[in-house]
Amino acid sequence: MEQTKNERVYNFSAGPGSLPLSVLEESARQMTNFNGSGMSVMEMSHRGSYFMEIARDAEATLRRVMGVPDNYKVLFLQGGASTQFSAVPLNLMKSKADYVVSGEFSGKAFKEAARYGDAACIATSAETNFDRIPAFTKKDLRPGTDYLHICYNNTIYGTRYPGVPDTGDVTLVADMSSCIMSEPVDVSKFGVIYAGAQKNIGPAGLTVVIVREDLLGSARPETPTMLDWKVQADAGSMYNTPPCWSIYVAGLVFHWVEDMGGVTEMKKRNEKKAALLYETLENAPLFKLHAQKDSRSLMNVTFRTGDPDMDKLFVSEAAKIGLVTLAGHRKVGGMRASIYNAMPYEGVAKLCDFIQDFSKKYAK
Amino acid sequence: MEQTKNERVYNFSAGPGSLPLSVLEESARQMTNFNGSGMSVMEMSHRGSYFMEIARDAEATLRRVMGVPDNYKVLFLQGGASTQFSAVPLNLMKSKADYVVSGEFSGKAFKEAARYGDAACIATSAETNFDRIPAFTKKDLRPGTDYLHICYNNTIYGTRYPGVPDTGDVTLVADMSSCIMSEPVDVSKFGVIYAGAQKNIGPAGLTVVIVREDLLGSARPETPTMLDWKVQADAGSMYNTPPCWSIYVAGLVFHWVEDMGGVTEMKKRNEKKAALLYETLENAPLFKLHAQKDSRSLMNVTFRTGDPDMDKLFVSEAAKIGLVTLAGHRKVGGMRASIYNAMPYEGVAKLCDFIQDFSKKYAK
Repeated sequence: MEQTKNERVYNFSAGPGSLPLSVLEESARQMTNFNGSGMSVMEMSHRGSYFMEIARDAEATLRRVMGVPDNYKVLFLQGGASTQFSAVPLNLMKSKADYVVSGEFSGKAFKEAARYGDAACIATSAETNFDRIPAFTKKDLRPGTDYLHICYNNTIYGTRYPGVPDTGDVTLVADMSSCIMSEPVDVSKFGVIYAGAQKNIGPAGLTVVIVREDLLGSARPETPTMLDWKVQADAGSMYNTPPCWSIYVAGLVFHWVEDMGGVTEMKKRNEKKAALLYETLENAPLFKLHAQKDSRSLMNVTFRTGDPDMDKLFVSEAAKIGLVTLAGHRKVGGMRASIYNAMPYEGVAKLCDFIQDFSKKYAK
Repeated sequence: MEQTKNERVYNFSAGPGSLPLSVLEESARQMTNFNGSGMSVMEMSHRGSYFMEIARDAEATLRRVMGVPDNYKVLFLQGGASTQFSAVPLNLMKSKADYVVSGEFSGKAFKEAARYGDAACIATSAETNFDRIPAFTKKDLRPGTDYLHICYNNTIYGTRYPGVPDTGDVTLVADMSSCIMSEPVDVSKFGVIYAGAQKNIGPAGLTVVIVREDLLGSARPETPTMLDWKVQADAGSMYNTPPCWSIYVAGLVFHWVEDMGGVTEMKKRNEKKAALLYETLENAPLFKLHAQKDSRSLMNVTFRTGDPDMDKLFVSEAAKIGLVTLAGHRKVGGMRASIYNAMPYEGVAKLCDFIQDFSKKYAK
């Protein structure tokens, strides 16, 4: 049955990705007059009482949802994770920093750090096209390194750390752009967690940085003021005009996560969705999974037929029934289904039915 | 007559500021299903056909509206003008740079440049609390300076350059955050024009940078990759995920400006609004204007009674009849009415009626 123009699709985009329908509807409902203010959230002074409350509530809700300890600052910034690739070494690197390169973005983060000082890649899975999280222990860290940087979930390759790596006394910094709020995480094990919003948080244009307070105040002299976490922390993320609309929508998403049962419930749902999809793919003779079993992501599921033309047919046939944005990244090929928090079980079930039908039809 | 909770207000916020009601309504109408895509603009892959067309159209429309010559790139970035305070010297300063300090933000831009090299303030109106654009000529520029930086309209103090200063062969860089698209500007007289979106363009979280192509490719080695204009230009402003929603709404605003008659018509309307407001204030015995006549802004009108308690009363009484966000910045005190493109004449007329009534009631 073909999709009509009036229907919502199931959108498997890797980011910007699906948002909860209730969040979209609420933001539309309040568009021209937020809470009787007579203004849109897009029109309000960020220093006014309406927006100050929106920002305060968004931070407080995220703190509850993620269990952020009191000795961590939560910053609402701009520029995406890619800007943090620079901000991390600029704020933290005194002499040297270690990186695990487990995919595209951790590779970019590593290269950016190397522009500012002595950065080393201590483990990588590049030789197997990033089909796994590379093995390493704290003994692989260089003595005196200022931090270890990891990317917790690799969007393009569909891999995820099975647990938080033990780095001993070394500060752990994690890019969690594509898995933040998808499962409970012990924030106290990290020095810094950062994430672009556009996968599990809200609209593109917001970057969340969660940073332990003792790590603030040591930015390198060449750090642009806007990239200095201490400046932003001291100004309550309002050193300049923040991305107000994105913060507002993110706040609605934080409440949605909390109302659904929090990150514990999110993990349960995400595991159920991912289990169904991985099992369906394992049992469909036409398809091969990219990620190794012990490194599989809950958020991004990468698979292929092995025949680029067949992959294209899969993507275009799926789109006809409202299963969209399933093409894989060119570095992996094949397909990628991103099943973030906002993707309902029904969307994954419909995709699985399609996978089975497609496999039956085309498997030799 | 008091404002009710169902009505829109006249919002004189300095930024984020008013947006055209038709733009807000259109964005709400398309919120859960943009053009039959089955997705919100907030949910779409920035690499997908729907968003690529939104971004292409937004740039093309801005180019038409501002008459941007072909040898200029238009970048849609994040981080606000404050991030450009760093990006300007990082991209352009080889040996030294000159700054005119005509207010708060030009002062911040100057200080940021001084962190990277030999920056000089060649003219300032600090000694008169920035009540005017300071006088200078191209003879005041230092020999061999890489550029002159100005802030074309000073939001806090309510001043504006009466025309584009002649800098001879020296590259002119202008922060136009609070006046972009308010009147025709000969882009070819500038090397770089940049603007935070949240005053005359759209929602906070988008920064527009218009840069002449020959100025690209000379970024200093310490430049964060995301702040390198050439990287962004080469990637079509999609080196990473752009602020998609803000670009979409900005595109709607660009079309609104064009449909109204373009920047020529905007200037006519803005001059009419500003003339009414300045004239009303000049004739109301209770009020004094902050900006000197030949430096007056079309966008931000600063005034005061001279009695801080009376100023507070003005702001609170005005709010009761739906004239909101009129408090001045603490550096100037008094009141500030920001009358950007989206502020209708009726809003200014209503404010002027209130000013006259208030002055009659309280002038001694």
